Amino acid sequence: MSHSLLLLPGDGIGTEIMVEVEKIIAWTNGEGLTDFSTDHGLVGGAAFDKHQVAVTEEDVEKAKAADAVIFGAVGGPKWDDVPYEHRPEAALLRLRKELGVFANLRPAICYPALAEASSLKRELIEGLDILIVRELTGGVYFGEPKQITDLGNGQKRAVDTQVYETYEIDRIARVAFDLARTRSGKVHSADKKNVMKSGVLWDEVVRSVARDYPDVEFHHILADNAAMQLVRNPKQFDVMVTDNLFGDILSDAAAMLTGSLGMLPSASLGAPDPVTGKRKAFYEPVHGSAPDIAGKGIANPIAMIASFAMALRYSFGLVELAGKVEAAIAAVLGDGLRTADIGESNRKTIGTEEMGAAILSK
Amino acid sequence: MSHSLLLLPGDGIGTEIMVEVEKIIAWTNGEGLTDFSTDHGLVGGAAFDKHQVAVTEEDVEKAKAADAVIFGAVGGPKWDDVPYEHRPEAALLRLRKELGVFANLRPAICYPALAEASSLKRELIEGLDILIVRELTGGVYFGEPKQITDLGNGQKRAVDTQVYETYEIDRIARVAFDLARTRSGKVHSADKKNVMKSGVLWDEVVRSVARDYPDVEFHHILADNAAMQLVRNPKQFDVMVTDNLFGDILSDAAAMLTGSLGMLPSASLGAPDPVTGKRKAFYEPVHGSAPDIAGKGIANPIAMIASFAMALRYSFGLVELAGKVEAAIAAVLGDGLRTADIGESNRKTIGTEEMGAAILSK
Ligand SMILES: CC(C)[C@H](C(=O)O)[C@@H](O)C(=O)O
Ligand SMILES: CC(C)[C@H](C(=O)O)[C@@H](O)C(=O)O
Repeated sequence: MSHSLLLLPGDGIGTEIMVEVEKIIAWTNGEGLTDFSTDHGLVGGAAFDKHQVAVTEEDVEKAKAADAVIFGAVGGPKWDDVPYEHRPEAALLRLRKELGVFANLRPAICYPALAEASSLKRELIEGLDILIVRELTGGVYFGEPKQITDLGNGQKRAVDTQVYETYEIDRIARVAFDLARTRSGKVHSADKKNVMKSGVLWDEVVRSVARDYPDVEFHHILADNAAMQLVRNPKQFDVMVTDNLFGDILSDAAAMLTGSLGMLPSASLGAPDPVTGKRKAFYEPVHGSAPDIAGKGIANPIAMIASFAMALRYSFGLVELAGKVEAAIAAVLGDGLRTADIGESNRKTIGTEEMGAAILSK
Repeated sequence: MSHSLLLLPGDGIGTEIMVEVEKIIAWTNGEGLTDFSTDHGLVGGAAFDKHQVAVTEEDVEKAKAADAVIFGAVGGPKWDDVPYEHRPEAALLRLRKELGVFANLRPAICYPALAEASSLKRELIEGLDILIVRELTGGVYFGEPKQITDLGNGQKRAVDTQVYETYEIDRIARVAFDLARTRSGKVHSADKKNVMKSGVLWDEVVRSVARDYPDVEFHHILADNAAMQLVRNPKQFDVMVTDNLFGDILSDAAAMLTGSLGMLPSASLGAPDPVTGKRKAFYEPVHGSAPDIAGKGIANPIAMIASFAMALRYSFGLVELAGKVEAAIAAVLGDGLRTADIGESNRKTIGTEEMGAAILSK
């Protein structure tokens, strides 16, 4: 059965690493393992340069129609001064919201071959496998009012609004508990219920969901303490569910702990369609567009390729093929191949294309 | 000249570590180095148990009248179910707001004797000396509306409001830049201006303050990236200024990086009085009330004593005496004395009282 993918490479290294995913798609299609049709769109600075918006309506429609969206990265100093509503990040926020992909899964895995790259002591990080489940379409990212008012006298007032409703918390909590069942069976829910009313509601709803999963161990943790505990002893965590803003910060901290930032993929999933059961889905690497190394052919394509593997697993049920792609990544790392970002001083590094080719040949 | 201190030990280990500060006050008074009059109040669970509120109006008035407030810690599982507005943390929030102590200084220093206690590799952490300057009386902690609305049908909506006005950002930025001048001359300002309007205003105002400090190196950093960079390479930072919520999380992460959490003090300062030039001031350790070890006499009093040293320096201009107290702490650690929280497996640990006495004897 044929499936459609929309590829949105974006800016900076986004375009370079997407090329490596396209090669893998060409190969899996050629082998008859998949039957993907692909289309392309512009997002971020690339879209702004051509169309003066961060993403066109046409590309938003294409994203909605696609079976999965594969996204590279957006942004760069070139677009620092574009108006707020057209800044590169606006494409990402718009697409998340329009697709309704509320469940952002961010694995923080320490690849054994890379444990040395972590700033943490090896014993604290080796074997780390955390899954951060971040709410992605609500909270302070989208709440209204969100505005700056001129008060005169050189004074302005800026307002952002953190809003959560019961159903939004309920559905993300269920995603977290369902995933915990397939893993080590433990969920931490992070909020600031000691200061925020949204935290009070968050905790109330997550606790009531927890009662439906008596087989899953449940812990509440304050978000500031979560940041501390991630640094102190990350292996105490399995699944961590949290809101959009805390998820942004905690997942980045967790990703950096692993030392494997250039390796980490993410998946953002919507609710299953009541008729077809299909979920809208959006896959992107955790890293950004790295303007400083863009165009040099040295970017690490692994997070992008691993994001594609997540698409194979979560959108197309191709669990075995996804596993093969992931095994190829691990094998290549096991062989000692490294791009510059994960290179050690005493080891030769390879470029984006060579890394892509090495994975493909596995 | 006589000065008044209000001591608010609070809950858990708060009461135990405050006793050690009282001994130091008795000694400095006895030596004629200070002339402090002290008064006591109840906060947190201790106040709730006696008065059914987190802090009484009378104690709020005492805090406002005092030259400095020395605060222990609040909270514990015993009060998990008290109504939201009377929860132990409410005392802290109320006092911060009523005193107007908008500038929260949180040093993250790695004591050389404790570098091993950090989860980070020694070379990344040794000599670390970051000062997080957190806005403490605004943002999502205090913005209105802040409420939960029942929508019927089992649905509720929770709202918190992040609000900042120009003057609030301006004054905290100036504190940060002034402090940077007394240190290595570098300021990072962390926000989420790519997503939040308050971040846009934050950055605009901080940049305009930066223009008044051409001698200080200024960098903008996104809050999520700040969390990453703190983990990756914390020594790149000197002063980091940020809002109330990001400051809460980033300062906790930074504190934990040092491995010296039980050692870290904080100071919260108000604006100088236009007539007397005096600032309202509030000193507290960064750690919490640690209910799990309360009452055992094993809590580490160092952060509390170091907070008192900050009071000597910032509220009373007793810079030399403050330095002596800090040197005593370093000397005791250099002698190998450790409380249980910073103990190494092969070393004897001492209790709260012994640690206090050891510092005093220096
Ligand atoms: C680019 C930015 C808008 C985005 C976010 O804050 O969500 C990014 O940091 C992320 O985590 O995907
Ligand atoms: C106890 C809590 C209200 C407080 C805060 O969030 O500010 C604490 O975490 C802190 O950092 O002082």
